[in-house]
Amino acid sequence: MLKSRYRAAQTGGSADDVEAAFYEALQAGDLVQMMACWADEDDIFCVHPGGPRLVGAAAIRAAFEAMFSHGSVRAYPERLRKVESLGAAVHNVLERIDLTTAEGTQHAWVVATNVYMKTAQGWRLVAHHASPGRSEVAEVAATAQVLH
Amino acid sequence: MLKSRYRAAQTGGSADDVEAAFYEALQAGDLVQMMACWADEDDIFCVHPGGPRLVGAAAIRAAFEAMFSHGSVRAYPERLRKVESLGAAVHNVLERIDLTTAEGTQHAWVVATNVYMKTAQGWRLVAHHASPGRSEVAEVAATAQVLH
Repeated sequence: MLKSRYRAAQTGGSADDVEAAFYEALQAGDLVQMMACWADEDDIFCVHPGGPRLVGAAAIRAAFEAMFSHGSVRAYPERLRKVESLGAAVHNVLERIDLTTAEGTQHAWVVATNVYMKTAQGWRLVAHHASPGRSEVAEVAATAQVLH
Repeated sequence: MLKSRYRAAQTGGSADDVEAAFYEALQAGDLVQMMACWADEDDIFCVHPGGPRLVGAAAIRAAFEAMFSHGSVRAYPERLRKVESLGAAVHNVLERIDLTTAEGTQHAWVVATNVYMKTAQGWRLVAHHASPGRSEVAEVAATAQVLH
């Protein structure tokens, strides 16, 4: 499964394929697959929850390497929203993070924006911005017209 | 100044012009100009620091209206980084927020990702994701090879 997603991302898969490969890399703690998801651009950027912004592949790689040295990250993207154009896709997901505690598995929530662009190498991640989420009010959508 | 930026955004300005109009709308508490920056798409989304994700123009408008009812927001974008393609522009800025306190003006910092797409109406904002920043370590760039 991992390998097939990875290959899909490498050989012209969609933005959705690259997103799947990104979260599989997190879940597996696979630094090679993680970095293969990113575009080869100087100004790609990544913000982990509460962290500084990381600019460029070297800074992003170093942060994921440090993260994976503590183990993999059981982050599962849910409730995807997207805005797409011909060469770009902007995704927002609510990441469910599974944490093992003395009381069993607990969940934490992260709101993440992932931006993909179609490059000469195929669809690639150019930005990941994640921040602490709130499970109780995760989303306010246009359909919730409580004010009217 | 406000009006000229606003017109630029309305009549085929660049992503940079729309970003300038967005921050001017925040600083002026101008809801009409704020909403004119956004694309006419169902799944546009906005995450304010620590808040839920807001999806769609109605939810986004309601949140800015509530925000502006307490006054304008003195947010100034600094240290812009961007990744651009033909029809999309992904910006990351460090927003300096000026706060008036008994001890004078204090600064808070926010990390924000702004994504623009070229629509039939011109360049428009499709996503704004802001989260609390840390002024002391605002950015780790690829050039800071402290690990090597």
